[in-house]
Amino acid sequence: MPGNRAVAYKEPGVVEVIDTEYPTFELKDGPGVNPANVGRKVPHGVILKTVATNICGSDQHMVRGRTTAPANLVLGHEITGEVVEVGPDVEFIKVGDIVSVPFNISCGRCRNCKVLKTGICLNVNPDRPGSAYGYVDMGGWVGGQAEYVLVPYADWNLLKFPDRDQALEKIMDLTMLSDIFPTGFHGAVTAGVGVGSTVYVAGAGPVGLAAAIGAQLLGAAVVIVGDMNEDRLAQARSFGCETVNVGEGPLRDQIEQILGVPEVDSGIDAVGFEARGHGKDASHEAPATVLNSLMDITTAGGSLGIPGLYVTGDPGAVDEAAQKGSLSLSLGTGWAKSLSFATGQCPVMKYNRQLMMAILHDKAPIAKAVNAKAISLEDAPRGYAEFDAGAATKFVLNPNGYLTA
Amino acid sequence: MPGNRAVAYKEPGVVEVIDTEYPTFELKDGPGVNPANVGRKVPHGVILKTVATNICGSDQHMVRGRTTAPANLVLGHEITGEVVEVGPDVEFIKVGDIVSVPFNISCGRCRNCKVLKTGICLNVNPDRPGSAYGYVDMGGWVGGQAEYVLVPYADWNLLKFPDRDQALEKIMDLTMLSDIFPTGFHGAVTAGVGVGSTVYVAGAGPVGLAAAIGAQLLGAAVVIVGDMNEDRLAQARSFGCETVNVGEGPLRDQIEQILGVPEVDSGIDAVGFEARGHGKDASHEAPATVLNSLMDITTAGGSLGIPGLYVTGDPGAVDEAAQKGSLSLSLGTGWAKSLSFATGQCPVMKYNRQLMMAILHDKAPIAKAVNAKAISLEDAPRGYAEFDAGAATKFVLNPNGYLTA
Amino acid sequence: MPGNRAVAYKEPGVVEVIDTEYPTFELKDGPGVNPANVGRKVPHGVILKTVATNICGSDQHMVRGRTTAPANLVLGHEITGEVVEVGPDVEFIKVGDIVSVPFNISCGRCRNCKVLKTGICLNVNPDRPGSAYGYVDMGGWVGGQAEYVLVPYADWNLLKFPDRDQALEKIMDLTMLSDIFPTGFHGAVTAGVGVGSTVYVAGAGPVGLAAAIGAQLLGAAVVIVGDMNEDRLAQARSFGCETVNVGEGPLRDQIEQILGVPEVDSGIDAVGFEARGHGKDASHEAPATVLNSLMDITTAGGSLGIPGLYVTGDPGAVDEAAQKGSLSLSLGTGWAKSLSFATGQCPVMKYNRQLMMAILHDKAPIAKAVNAKAISLEDAPRGYAEFDAGAATKFVLNPNGYLTA
Amino acid sequence: MPGNRAVAYKEPGVVEVIDTEYPTFELKDGPGVNPANVGRKVPHGVILKTVATNICGSDQHMVRGRTTAPANLVLGHEITGEVVEVGPDVEFIKVGDIVSVPFNISCGRCRNCKVLKTGICLNVNPDRPGSAYGYVDMGGWVGGQAEYVLVPYADWNLLKFPDRDQALEKIMDLTMLSDIFPTGFHGAVTAGVGVGSTVYVAGAGPVGLAAAIGAQLLGAAVVIVGDMNEDRLAQARSFGCETVNVGEGPLRDQIEQILGVPEVDSGIDAVGFEARGHGKDASHEAPATVLNSLMDITTAGGSLGIPGLYVTGDPGAVDEAAQKGSLSLSLGTGWAKSLSFATGQCPVMKYNRQLMMAILHDKAPIAKAVNAKAISLEDAPRGYAEFDAGAATKFVLNPNGYLTA
Repeated sequence: MPGNRAVAYKEPGVVEVIDTEYPTFELKDGPGVNPANVGRKVPHGVILKTVATNICGSDQHMVRGRTTAPANLVLGHEITGEVVEVGPDVEFIKVGDIVSVPFNISCGRCRNCKVLKTGICLNVNPDRPGSAYGYVDMGGWVGGQAEYVLVPYADWNLLKFPDRDQALEKIMDLTMLSDIFPTGFHGAVTAGVGVGSTVYVAGAGPVGLAAAIGAQLLGAAVVIVGDMNEDRLAQARSFGCETVNVGEGPLRDQIEQILGVPEVDSGIDAVGFEARGHGKDASHEAPATVLNSLMDITTAGGSLGIPGLYVTGDPGAVDEAAQKGSLSLSLGTGWAKSLSFATGQCPVMKYNRQLMMAILHDKAPIAKAVNAKAISLEDAPRGYAEFDAGAATKFVLNPNGYLTA
Repeated sequence: MPGNRAVAYKEPGVVEVIDTEYPTFELKDGPGVNPANVGRKVPHGVILKTVATNICGSDQHMVRGRTTAPANLVLGHEITGEVVEVGPDVEFIKVGDIVSVPFNISCGRCRNCKVLKTGICLNVNPDRPGSAYGYVDMGGWVGGQAEYVLVPYADWNLLKFPDRDQALEKIMDLTMLSDIFPTGFHGAVTAGVGVGSTVYVAGAGPVGLAAAIGAQLLGAAVVIVGDMNEDRLAQARSFGCETVNVGEGPLRDQIEQILGVPEVDSGIDAVGFEARGHGKDASHEAPATVLNSLMDITTAGGSLGIPGLYVTGDPGAVDEAAQKGSLSLSLGTGWAKSLSFATGQCPVMKYNRQLMMAILHDKAPIAKAVNAKAISLEDAPRGYAEFDAGAATKFVLNPNGYLTA
Repeated sequence: MPGNRAVAYKEPGVVEVIDTEYPTFELKDGPGVNPANVGRKVPHGVILKTVATNICGSDQHMVRGRTTAPANLVLGHEITGEVVEVGPDVEFIKVGDIVSVPFNISCGRCRNCKVLKTGICLNVNPDRPGSAYGYVDMGGWVGGQAEYVLVPYADWNLLKFPDRDQALEKIMDLTMLSDIFPTGFHGAVTAGVGVGSTVYVAGAGPVGLAAAIGAQLLGAAVVIVGDMNEDRLAQARSFGCETVNVGEGPLRDQIEQILGVPEVDSGIDAVGFEARGHGKDASHEAPATVLNSLMDITTAGGSLGIPGLYVTGDPGAVDEAAQKGSLSLSLGTGWAKSLSFATGQCPVMKYNRQLMMAILHDKAPIAKAVNAKAISLEDAPRGYAEFDAGAATKFVLNPNGYLTA
Repeated sequence: MPGNRAVAYKEPGVVEVIDTEYPTFELKDGPGVNPANVGRKVPHGVILKTVATNICGSDQHMVRGRTTAPANLVLGHEITGEVVEVGPDVEFIKVGDIVSVPFNISCGRCRNCKVLKTGICLNVNPDRPGSAYGYVDMGGWVGGQAEYVLVPYADWNLLKFPDRDQALEKIMDLTMLSDIFPTGFHGAVTAGVGVGSTVYVAGAGPVGLAAAIGAQLLGAAVVIVGDMNEDRLAQARSFGCETVNVGEGPLRDQIEQILGVPEVDSGIDAVGFEARGHGKDASHEAPATVLNSLMDITTAGGSLGIPGLYVTGDPGAVDEAAQKGSLSLSLGTGWAKSLSFATGQCPVMKYNRQLMMAILHDKAPIAKAVNAKAISLEDAPRGYAEFDAGAATKFVLNPNGYLTA
């Protein structure tokens, strides 16, 4: 049996690549594993040899110490792999398949899974609906920034790529199917983006860029991306978006300069609870800033898609309300404009097959859009640091050398 | 030409029935009329002799002095009438028709009207999208708690009842089509209520009761109504709802006693910005209480319909944030549960025809559900006072004697 | 190990109750089993002791000899049971659970199941998408008009009733969840029925009556049921439907007498390919009659829900076209009216949970609507004969005495 | 007052440009005007000076003598113009506006218009729901292949382009908004095309090509267009479609060669009732061919969008059934695959604004896709002839010289 190497959270600001156990068809005790999940049998699982596994902005929340994540938690929920072992209950997935793993773990049997609300599966996390690999308070499923990883309910969860060679050729695009491409796309869909829409995306990180390309795929007429990081804005312009530096003046005015009107049809929050103020307030956190500005610049009757993460507890927040996950929202404005709001984890399975088709047929250059860059597993700490520093790059770990093939 | 009598706001806590002008096909200057609307020609309008016109909870916001409504503003946006004059551009509506008037005034020609978002019409209110009769900051269209009222864009706005005698026979039900029945129904629809749903309605006022009967029409399995007013809760029980006195213990527990689980599929806010706290906090306003409790008791993946009014400015609010229409919302909880939120005025025209059909075929006893009671126009001040004091009654004004016929 | 008794098709017009094998967790060879399914392992299955199992109109197609069903095919796809054995891969369903079995067998893992199109599962029938128990050309899964039956993919397929005693008390209603109630409801949903709709249901057999009660649950203002069987029409009137004897004059005229207009909003075909002509043509088959008349009486812009079965091959049909499943349809009429058409098996899982809720909370008296009548398993041949003769009765077999408890 | 020149149908195979009356705000008697419409006042109308007006495939049905169109009927329902006079009831449209006219005439006041079913407006055609300019049996509204044309209910019907210069610059694209672009797009929408879809479009005429580009806008992964006209197929390939010559072998096989599977997700019928057979049957009409082949090659659970015209009466059809608009359809196949079917005129107003946005922001090169070519009004007879002969060209008439500016 091979060993296993994995990226682990150690303490605020520190991740390390550690030796860890090769997975078996059981969820064993370990850092962050919910007691009720310890010893859970996983005959429906498969073991993947990781082909690609990405560093995600939501990992940074843990690494920055904004959560209660324990030391040695193995990180990683953006996983693409080759099946190397199948559990006894697996019927349709086979050894050798190249597969994408939705970051939300779901059972495929509960009421919510049956309507594809896989982000709030009732059977995988004893604490609350919904789970993910390598994430605090999500049941304790081991992360996939590793050489090998266990995926439960494999027949249900996995998206098999139709052709191995084609998959490996487009792997830098396909690796985005595990999270950010569907997540950004979900933001666009729930914001009501359609053919001819004008769209504003708050945040030019990978999810924001994925939302932008998702909006383009949906036929948007104009996609405007806002951020304060000029490198990331340049990235957005590279595939045809308009951009706004939110530190440089009122958002409505900047939008009006682009569109002729100060409002867009659809607004997407790809930032979440660690939002900073705009303009002269930009140096400190202002968690309600993004949502309030989206209400301001979204046209009456529009929708806000909110894929950006908001948490129930944030010990490091700026004030007591934010520490409990409460925000001071201008709901009066939203109500007067008849706005709608859609929140929550993206149910990846709802979109990954169709986005795979778009990638395989060259309709969605997502890797280029987010500036995907492969680095070795051992380089993960550097990747975390650069990403946290604002690099306009999506880091893809390459634990088994597939990406250099 | 006849004169006109109408209910007018005088000062906080005071309404009076005054003599006023008989309408013409022009929007003349007067209390609360937007300067840009003064002198607007209305050849597309009709003049109605009012058959029934109801006192609405949202009128109370003005009467309580919570708005900037000027003295002598004629109130009333829940109007059913008989057409007595038609403007030169009216083609399909005829003198003698008995018609229901959607409270939202809309042009039937703008981008929003074309997709039936009549609550945010772009052409009737110079200040912002959306308008209503007899309401502050809504453009200045004269209210309909009067003997006669002008309705613009009549071919578009009016719902004609198919048979005059049948209409007058069911008038106490049909009068609810102008606002509260569609508004409550919209709350249920946007909360995702369907066949077999479990539903919680916050507030047992007329809109809450209408939401409850709307949920029943949509096939809900269980409708639970919460309030602190026992008379109103008794009203809810009279047509098959379960009830919860929110002053008597945690809402989750009370729901669990009814359903066996502490959460419902769909939550409806029929209270709005003047919410009070629950339990021992019930004596003072707590504008975010209802929404936060709905997030708590709505199941993951559920939707919140928010027909209850939230305003952009409320000078009388408990704190500075609420005065600006900002609320401290537990968005972290909502996000973790993947909840959706739908706000805004109900676009009445989207629903009034189908709800009329339900009434005409005896499927929706809305008058009985809300305990509708006809009183004379001159008695309006008493109606306002009793309603404000918490009477479990929906007052219907009878300016022209049709209701006693 | 107990033995097993089951209803089997013998030859045109003849069914018998036979001794057969007690099921195991394997699909063995037998009458009508697809060779590619022989020997298929079913570790994900459970064995049910049948609580209730109904005779369905679609069984009659086989019994009348209108299909290529082989002798000794065990019939029955409307199954409710108590779990007596669970396969090794079953995780959430337990021995002792009382469960409803959707008639469509589905894997819960394929592309179609993931979007709840369980009527066209790709993994259960080697011949084509979609399967059912005890049905010709559906893969060979053994029927459930028996004392015991095997249900594959049990965690996915089964709907567990929340409380055993409550379930047995309402069992005559709940047994309709396996097929006809969802099937009729699907007809109403796909016909666009909503609050206030006017609806015409062609056919007053059990599916037609279920469509009618489904339309009522959805809030229809008026439901009209048409048939030539007066007993069945009386049944429809018993729960508030209007009725039309299609043998007694033009359908448009009869509808106009009821509604004042000759068209309805939504049309439902609950008859299918064995339709007979109307009026003086009523004595012979006219397979396109129902659809053409629905196009005639459905209002422009309406939808037709077509739960009635149309087959690809019908050796006993009246002419060569119908033998191949071709019908002469007035598509010109349909196109001019911008009609939409929805066909196919009802995906039961899409609806059964919500309809269960409606039953458990006394909103849907389906057993009474279809005049459900329990008879012993041994009496099945009599039930088939009476049903085929037009009895206004839905026969529920009672193989293990639960229904007499 | 200026005169007027217009294209008129004279007899089968013959169109001529004739002198005709300059329009007034009244629908006068004339060829094909419904008696109930004669003398109808149109104070809500505007008079347009035609900027561009296209020859449509559905005009050809009349010109070929396949309808009861009377001699001297002025043709043309694809109209873009400059407003030169406004009726007294027009409020928002102004002289000088450059506007697109939806080919369906609608009142903006009836039940169907209120839900944007403008293709079946109840108030414009005394014969049946739905109308169009210059078309037989559509009420008699005068056609727009003319220098000047009257447009009723102008505030409702017209789409104003935001900027005159920009509009004239992109006029060859924008002229397609009056019919074929929305019509093709509607085919794609109703066929369920979305991001990642595989799509087959039957017919490479202008509507088929518009459907193809519409499918691309909606994010389709692969769009396959089938026809027997190689020039038109070349046109389809010019903007990235795959193509199939339906005369050269079984369609399933050809699709399988492209996709690896013999079925697509979505099928679009852009041919209609004048379909010809495939392969060796290609020389004679076979009106059910297209729909039956679409049922064959659309995957189970898929949808068929049917923008291609099917008529209720076709005196020139190949057999008696087709003369009545009846087709022999393989409904058994469709039902077994759970297919859905959407028919009828495209409600242009549902899509034209969003498609305009796509054009104005360079997302939809529709003119290039359909090979639009401007010709003079006087050249219309040549355009009709060449188009009828199969030219891969969309002819745009230029009655007032705007297109040469």
